[in-house]
Amino acid sequence: MSAFTAVDVIRAKRDGGVLSDGQIDWMVDAYTKGLVADEQMSALAMAILLRGMTGPEIARWTAAMIASGERLDLSPVSRPTVDKHSTGGVGDKITLPLTPLVAACGAAVPQLSGRGLGHTGGTLDKLESIPGWRAALSNDEFIAQLRDVGAVICAAGAGLAPADRKLYALRDVTGTVEAIPLIASSIMSKKIAEGTGALVLDVKVGSGAFMKNVDDARELARTMVELGKAHDVRTVALLTDMSTPLGLTVGNAVEVTESVEVLAGGGPADVVELTLALAREMLTAAGLPDADPEAALRDGRAMDAWRSMIRAQGGDPDAPMPAANEVEVVCATDDGYVAEVDAYAIGVAAWRLGAGRARKEDPVSIPAGVVLHKRPGDRVRVGEPLYELRAEHAERIPAALAEAERAVRIAPDAPTTTPLVIERIG
Amino acid sequence: MSAFTAVDVIRAKRDGGVLSDGQIDWMVDAYTKGLVADEQMSALAMAILLRGMTGPEIARWTAAMIASGERLDLSPVSRPTVDKHSTGGVGDKITLPLTPLVAACGAAVPQLSGRGLGHTGGTLDKLESIPGWRAALSNDEFIAQLRDVGAVICAAGAGLAPADRKLYALRDVTGTVEAIPLIASSIMSKKIAEGTGALVLDVKVGSGAFMKNVDDARELARTMVELGKAHDVRTVALLTDMSTPLGLTVGNAVEVTESVEVLAGGGPADVVELTLALAREMLTAAGLPDADPEAALRDGRAMDAWRSMIRAQGGDPDAPMPAANEVEVVCATDDGYVAEVDAYAIGVAAWRLGAGRARKEDPVSIPAGVVLHKRPGDRVRVGEPLYELRAEHAERIPAALAEAERAVRIAPDAPTTTPLVIERIG
Repeated sequence: MSAFTAVDVIRAKRDGGVLSDGQIDWMVDAYTKGLVADEQMSALAMAILLRGMTGPEIARWTAAMIASGERLDLSPVSRPTVDKHSTGGVGDKITLPLTPLVAACGAAVPQLSGRGLGHTGGTLDKLESIPGWRAALSNDEFIAQLRDVGAVICAAGAGLAPADRKLYALRDVTGTVEAIPLIASSIMSKKIAEGTGALVLDVKVGSGAFMKNVDDARELARTMVELGKAHDVRTVALLTDMSTPLGLTVGNAVEVTESVEVLAGGGPADVVELTLALAREMLTAAGLPDADPEAALRDGRAMDAWRSMIRAQGGDPDAPMPAANEVEVVCATDDGYVAEVDAYAIGVAAWRLGAGRARKEDPVSIPAGVVLHKRPGDRVRVGEPLYELRAEHAERIPAALAEAERAVRIAPDAPTTTPLVIERIG
Repeated sequence: MSAFTAVDVIRAKRDGGVLSDGQIDWMVDAYTKGLVADEQMSALAMAILLRGMTGPEIARWTAAMIASGERLDLSPVSRPTVDKHSTGGVGDKITLPLTPLVAACGAAVPQLSGRGLGHTGGTLDKLESIPGWRAALSNDEFIAQLRDVGAVICAAGAGLAPADRKLYALRDVTGTVEAIPLIASSIMSKKIAEGTGALVLDVKVGSGAFMKNVDDARELARTMVELGKAHDVRTVALLTDMSTPLGLTVGNAVEVTESVEVLAGGGPADVVELTLALAREMLTAAGLPDADPEAALRDGRAMDAWRSMIRAQGGDPDAPMPAANEVEVVCATDDGYVAEVDAYAIGVAAWRLGAGRARKEDPVSIPAGVVLHKRPGDRVRVGEPLYELRAEHAERIPAALAEAERAVRIAPDAPTTTPLVIERIG
């Protein structure tokens, strides 16, 4: 018989205590094995959300989640490995140009990604717009592609941090997603188990992000940076603005198209800026501070790496993106400046159009999404297109339109600009 | 599709909000029907424990639990109805003499009781020491016995507050038992659904009780009194001491024997005192303030009512109680006074002897238990018996002995006495 019981562990945290290493190890292991019931873990998750965890508790919890599964050995990859994780935003397609760009500069990027839920999209959903591309790789395929191509974006295997997989699904239905110790340990357990040598975190702040204010984002970033360092993963974080969508596109196919524009040396200025900022952090963390990602975008090396990466996973980089049947173009009814494009409302609009999912089992629409014609600070005249809504079915438009109309505000004067990269924590 | 989701309700309480009537009604109903999952309700229970509930929230929650099942109609009973509920203690056999005593004085007592778990015993477990006695009655049998005998002690039917039944089992395994709003609504939903016209609450305070301090006990008592009044049940509460066991016996058969002694006009002074104090409160609440329960004990009417009540449920009031195979008598090793007999430790000792159960499915031992020969304040000399431990199997003794030795303290001077009834809340 075990020395621990779930009720004792729950009570200890409920009453504001610090869980012992033994309690944490036992709880995570027993939950993974089904010896601790979902209703017990959800009560503990709520107690953690409301009572918090100390740094050592979070570190131990993360270690226990890593220990629930395998830890990949990337030593067959000769190049330095470095990964990026974004806490998720609206129009956040940065992983798509960034991964091949950093690979083109000499590092290997083992990018395990996820799917969208709610108002934020998922990298895997976006890449599945490309005919033939597949998200699921075996561990051997993953490591081989990392070695040969230097860039992989795929789904995490079931063997990595299975405790996290189970706990994440539970938190989603029990109102316990928003616990910083659990968010940090969830992200970091997967990244550490994946075996990367270095990691750059893009912690989003603003209406379209999970963290609505800088203080919470900073706490999350610091917690994750500490966890990375404790596990010998060189980790830095950037806090970046998510009050407005990234780039001009929010959806699946539309974001792939925009990413390819960036890889071709074009693309919206903010997407290029954040891609380069993150690339420089990743290359520095990987021990390649002299690499020049700007040149790699300019001279086509990043595009070559993209094409190799897509082909290696069965995708056709030259296939045309499917078009939407229904397109509604919304034009300005006032002269002035675009004062605001609210990220959350645009994210919800894209979701309503079919680009996102309400439940994990739902499919997503490939062509659906929002395409902005103007961004905050742009001058606009009556009758000029502001944005367009794309969908496969016309009945998707009205609800999305209502959200988008709330999102975009025109004002007589130009708005003050806010920096995209708010703070660096390393 | 419902206007509510479990996650929204959980989040509202998690963030310190007040749940609306609609949210509470929906949550309790959906949980009872299985539309809200156990892991969702346990997260909410933890949020309620840590965030609290307002008076109106508790009232609505209680009403929703009552509405989850039937509410008995006791109008066929011509006598005024009055029930008692104890929050549970060690050696708390008061229901056994009290129920027939109050019936003998002219009220009808519909006493729905429970079983023991952990260090506190259960009234039904104790009565099942009596050969032939059965705890389960149909609603019709319950009402008929109440009408004809005036006294019933039985298990609550499955139709009463089924939401509470489900929620109580969940709280037990999720560390959420100790939430005052949930304790109060659990107790009161069953008592109100049972249809009693008046109710006296015995809220225990001290080491052997659920509530360890007077402030918590007072808050619980006030909450329950308010709930009773809101549902037109005349309700008063006594806060009573549970730092030392009630009477000289802790177990099942031993407590029945002691209760019969009280009904015969004898018994330990504290058991008689509390039985009479509660009887007077119950009779006053039932509109019979002039009844004389002391006389009913003295002249045998209470004993007659006991015999009728036991016989009505198939029991033989004259059957001898089974004896324990193993009896260990522990004697004093010092002269002095009994300074302390700790209720919790004695409760655990009786549990270890087999009188209680660790899991709901476990059986209990009928003859097992602790019999005190001395109580706090009693003078004691070296070699005099202090207490005895009774069990069916000798291997039960050592663990119980270790607990009992911790419980009893001898000191050179007589201890100061504490009142049994601490406070009245009405």
